[in-house]
Amino acid sequence: MNHPYPSHPPLPDALVEALSERFGASFSVSQAMRDQHGRDESVHPTAAPDAVVFAKSTEEVAEIVRLCREYRVPIIPFGAGSSVEGHFLAIHGGVCIDLSRMNRVVAIHAEDLDATVQPGVTRKQLNAELHDTGLFFPIDPGADASLGGMAATRASGTNAVRYGTMRENVLGMTVVLADGRIIRTGGRAKKSSAGYDLTRLFIGSEGTLGIITELTVKLYPVPEAISSAVCAFPSVDAAVGTVIQTIQIGVPVARIELLDALTISAVNRYSKTSLKEAPTLFFEFHGSPAGVEEQATLVQELAASHGGMNFEWATRPEDRTRLWQARHDAYFACLQLKPGSRAFPTDVCVPISRLAECIRATNADIARSTIPIPLFGHVGDGNFHLVVLIDPANPQEVAEAEKINHAVVERALAMEGTCTGEHGIGIGKQKFLLAEHGEGAVDVMRALKQALDPENLLNPGKILP
Amino acid sequence: MNHPYPSHPPLPDALVEALSERFGASFSVSQAMRDQHGRDESVHPTAAPDAVVFAKSTEEVAEIVRLCREYRVPIIPFGAGSSVEGHFLAIHGGVCIDLSRMNRVVAIHAEDLDATVQPGVTRKQLNAELHDTGLFFPIDPGADASLGGMAATRASGTNAVRYGTMRENVLGMTVVLADGRIIRTGGRAKKSSAGYDLTRLFIGSEGTLGIITELTVKLYPVPEAISSAVCAFPSVDAAVGTVIQTIQIGVPVARIELLDALTISAVNRYSKTSLKEAPTLFFEFHGSPAGVEEQATLVQELAASHGGMNFEWATRPEDRTRLWQARHDAYFACLQLKPGSRAFPTDVCVPISRLAECIRATNADIARSTIPIPLFGHVGDGNFHLVVLIDPANPQEVAEAEKINHAVVERALAMEGTCTGEHGIGIGKQKFLLAEHGEGAVDVMRALKQALDPENLLNPGKILP
Repeated sequence: MNHPYPSHPPLPDALVEALSERFGASFSVSQAMRDQHGRDESVHPTAAPDAVVFAKSTEEVAEIVRLCREYRVPIIPFGAGSSVEGHFLAIHGGVCIDLSRMNRVVAIHAEDLDATVQPGVTRKQLNAELHDTGLFFPIDPGADASLGGMAATRASGTNAVRYGTMRENVLGMTVVLADGRIIRTGGRAKKSSAGYDLTRLFIGSEGTLGIITELTVKLYPVPEAISSAVCAFPSVDAAVGTVIQTIQIGVPVARIELLDALTISAVNRYSKTSLKEAPTLFFEFHGSPAGVEEQATLVQELAASHGGMNFEWATRPEDRTRLWQARHDAYFACLQLKPGSRAFPTDVCVPISRLAECIRATNADIARSTIPIPLFGHVGDGNFHLVVLIDPANPQEVAEAEKINHAVVERALAMEGTCTGEHGIGIGKQKFLLAEHGEGAVDVMRALKQALDPENLLNPGKILP
Repeated sequence: MNHPYPSHPPLPDALVEALSERFGASFSVSQAMRDQHGRDESVHPTAAPDAVVFAKSTEEVAEIVRLCREYRVPIIPFGAGSSVEGHFLAIHGGVCIDLSRMNRVVAIHAEDLDATVQPGVTRKQLNAELHDTGLFFPIDPGADASLGGMAATRASGTNAVRYGTMRENVLGMTVVLADGRIIRTGGRAKKSSAGYDLTRLFIGSEGTLGIITELTVKLYPVPEAISSAVCAFPSVDAAVGTVIQTIQIGVPVARIELLDALTISAVNRYSKTSLKEAPTLFFEFHGSPAGVEEQATLVQELAASHGGMNFEWATRPEDRTRLWQARHDAYFACLQLKPGSRAFPTDVCVPISRLAECIRATNADIARSTIPIPLFGHVGDGNFHLVVLIDPANPQEVAEAEKINHAVVERALAMEGTCTGEHGIGIGKQKFLLAEHGEGAVDVMRALKQALDPENLLNPGKILP
């Protein structure tokens, strides 16, 4: 099938031979393997790499990079494949380095509240391995993403309102540079003022500045008490009003998520829940038993003052798990609202004082559309998503989704927000990068890319237009 | 007086004329003004700039930069002058841009928990202006530093254990680049995945990549309850053991500071306190009344189990202020232990599991020295300082201080720590940058510097050896 990306020359035979000889069965040019690495969870047209190599170590990644560089062939890192902005689509061809077999938890330093992991370790795997330590890793983007990929896209999710994003939760990383050199970006000290912040430079760089091959992440003690709750509201406005007040008075809520009525109806069908089909907040509170009680009472009062109904508690672990699994499945649940559709996700984030206004205006966009568009998100951070359900083969629907996304992003930028709270730029948000940051800042980004990858071999065509 | 830095040509007359004409009385080449901008709070030999300009706006900073660039003259930003690693010493001469008159709080967004300030606003000034909002800015390095300078050195201090450092508390900045262009590094959204993290790139860059002329910082609701306490211990080991357990069980302590017996004796003399002259922890707890009570009870039990004596509470605001003022004055109090001395401060930070061992070995160094060396620090983060009190004119004392610093840094690095937790590299820690980060990472830093300041005009000779 033709795809809309520029054509590129095939891989040089000599490179294929060299990779094949060196990596044997871990190297593949089979169409099935390439296709599997050329499609993400979004509507972006697929773009398969020319070959896939499964790396098993930092040194192997460095070797692959050096080989590809010799032939000026693009290199695309791949984690769990759960990104939604086309981050790993091989739009200029090249070799995909699949890091999913680098999935070892290298060290758990329970006393220091940190762990060092390979980039293919997923967040669920890490938490399973932490099970007996009394610690956990909080960042939770919904999908069981790889930690390397989460760092590369500066991911966050439901817990970020309390624990921060990947930006705040990585102490240091091992990174393979474009010329195959291996560097370490930080030690294990909780803070440091020693030179430029290379860790943060690579976090969110989407594989365009270097390939993350090891990370040291922060861990947290599992709270003594955890309590979740669900509360339906008469309107999205009322729900958002509750969120804003909760944040403004400083309740250290661990999660506060909004699902609109359409999303709830999708969740009920998909996850066999029986939630009231109204705008709904999902809460989670972490702390001591008394602390959780105190937070929950306060938030319940705020919710009641905004007309919240049926505050329902889930304190047993199995009930909480079911609730949050339903929340995490919302994306897939929404897809079932229109069988055969793909999701065009939006991802704006605004200062919380503008959140109600932003969602209200966005709901007017939704009301005018003929496409089903559930809305949900991490509203404690001012971040929400639309899942615009389209048939990618229908150009009118694609155009409408793009128009809605454009309107939502412009609105968020006018409110001093961002075009992407957590998904990243990839190929999907490049047109907004300039509007958000301005010419000068994007020039600085270009200068950084030029400084670290002068031949534009690392995941070319991503982030920078 | 001769100083140990390389000699440099005088400012070109044409530049002096241009700056003088454009900036009038805000421009000065007087020796007194230059000297005042050529000495910091450390032992580093003074190095006066060739001229000083007081800027009043981002545009003025950009104009000065463009003028200096025309003549290839170094540009050195200056905030409150409280740095301790020679950050603004004009070791290659040049023009100092004093930002202290850019001291306006531009906007307080109370609902969004953020404020936009000019770089000359000091932390105390900001907190005074926040007085009626119920909000505060937590980062507190002791000195009443400017927020621009704090961002430039990635400062932190006593509250960082709870609220993070400048790295975690700046949403976005306005920066003047080496060529005079003005960029904005981020909006006001609480999180964003939109492109490279320019905000973090400039935080900690010590004026070598750009000049920060505006910052949007996070604010926090003033806790409903605040309680401080002091507790003396039979040994430094016992105090540190208490700290480690407090952190490891996840008590969200707001401050947990260690002062050794010598520091306490200096504080008693300087601040007229009557603390027991033993290794002592200063605590602060933030939260709801019940939450603070709960934290305090827990920590008091931990302290008791480590032999802590005389747990004394300060809950009245005036008592707390007096206590923390005494803590903040510890640096100056220590200087009085040896009249006429200057402080050679160390600043390592290690993973908390190694903290007791690190301090124990460091105390052996101290015991072997003939110089008085108080020890104190932000032990909740694994960060502590020695204040090596020397006569800078005595080469033996300088050599001994350097030897001790070297030993402490090597020890911290061997423990996966950092040579500087919060002071920065400046000119004082350059020799350790390579040991900490390795050749490859320092090369990346050099490439970043080269990309953003190819003519090496911004604060030359700092950070990178």
